[in-house]
Amino acid sequence: MLMAEVVGSVVSTQKDPSLVGKKLMIIQPINSHQEKIRFQQVAADTVGAGIGDYVLLASGSSARRLFSEPSDAVDYAIVGIIDTFDM
Amino acid sequence: MLMAEVVGSVVSTQKDPSLVGKKLMIIQPINSHQEKIRFQQVAADTVGAGIGDYVLLASGSSARRLFSEPSDAVDYAIVGIIDTFDM
Amino acid sequence: MLMAEVVGSVVSTQKDPSLVGKKLMIIQPINSHQEKIRFQQVAADTVGAGIGDYVLLASGSSARRLFSEPSDAVDYAIVGIIDTFDM
Amino acid sequence: MLMAEVVGSVVSTQKDPSLVGKKLMIIQPINSHQEKIRFQQVAADTVGAGIGDYVLLASGSSARRLFSEPSDAVDYAIVGIIDTFDM
Amino acid sequence: MLMAEVVGSVVSTQKDPSLVGKKLMIIQPINSHQEKIRFQQVAADTVGAGIGDYVLLASGSSARRLFSEPSDAVDYAIVGIIDTFDM
Repeated sequence: MLMAEVVGSVVSTQKDPSLVGKKLMIIQPINSHQEKIRFQQVAADTVGAGIGDYVLLASGSSARRLFSEPSDAVDYAIVGIIDTFDM
Repeated sequence: MLMAEVVGSVVSTQKDPSLVGKKLMIIQPINSHQEKIRFQQVAADTVGAGIGDYVLLASGSSARRLFSEPSDAVDYAIVGIIDTFDM
Repeated sequence: MLMAEVVGSVVSTQKDPSLVGKKLMIIQPINSHQEKIRFQQVAADTVGAGIGDYVLLASGSSARRLFSEPSDAVDYAIVGIIDTFDM
Repeated sequence: MLMAEVVGSVVSTQKDPSLVGKKLMIIQPINSHQEKIRFQQVAADTVGAGIGDYVLLASGSSARRLFSEPSDAVDYAIVGIIDTFDM
Repeated sequence: MLMAEVVGSVVSTQKDPSLVGKKLMIIQPINSHQEKIRFQQVAADTVGAGIGDYVLLASGSSARRLFSEPSDAVDYAIVGIIDTFDM
């Protein structure tokens, strides 16, 4: 799982039915020193994460399987809130 | 999902049957400040997106599952139009 | 799908049975201005593409599903020839 | 499989049920000269790896299938401890 | 498929059962001019490749499906030896 910071969200009216009702958060991947790596993406939230939280991300088919309802369009999901980084 | 801007389209006569009838849009991934990231790809449109629209992309097996007809060759799809970026 | 130019092919005698009889083309990914991006890969051809053609590529499980015969080793396939880039 | 060094771990209280009870290790991918490559991720441990160990990582659906219990959120797993690099 | 050169191997005693008995080769991806690209990984050999050979790699679920025995931890496999690069 990538580590990331939640930095925002997107609003989308015209979208695939499987995205309706999901919180679509903009996330910035980070390393364990909270430095930015890679590039931003949009992830569907599954754990009640908010802006400024450090989170864990699941990608690909793993992300799609986390929802009980059909979620075909989801390829990135927030699956945990990071309390501490232990180095 | 990646965020992206729709910047064009491709015409292809000789192609896999699963691509026939699909709008094949050239997309440029962006971050939440609408700055270019990564590299262009071609995505099958599912939401009626046009050139200049900011969109959400699903990749891999997620993209393939969005169509009711067989879509084996699709590994990138436009799944939403972004109205606003909230930071 | 990535856009790419076909730049060559590879010959391989000792290979997985699922690659026998397939044309294995070397492709160079490009953007819509035909500038090189990323890095070369080898893709199995499904549309009769030749050297110099601009093509569309499917990756991962999408690529593997395009063949009627077992194609377990295929993770990149040429799925269309690009006639024009419309910007 | 990527080669990596285990450099830490994360604590997460609020997380997907499929992550409960799993050791979530921060890993830094390396090459065969133990030089850092790419970027850090978090991987679920399956072999009892500790900080400072060099390990092998499985990604994507491969990682998810390694656990007997449901592991939908896992997209990276430690699958071996490297004893020696033979060059 | 990525093109790569086999540059070494790893020894791992403590590992997932699905890796037991497999040759785990360190590979360096290359382009058609045999120049290094990307970064090293470890791939399970299926074709009897040795150090110095130029090979084709399958990734992800494609790699896992090449073995008759369970191979859950395999996400990279050597699937062919390249005899010639034709440009």
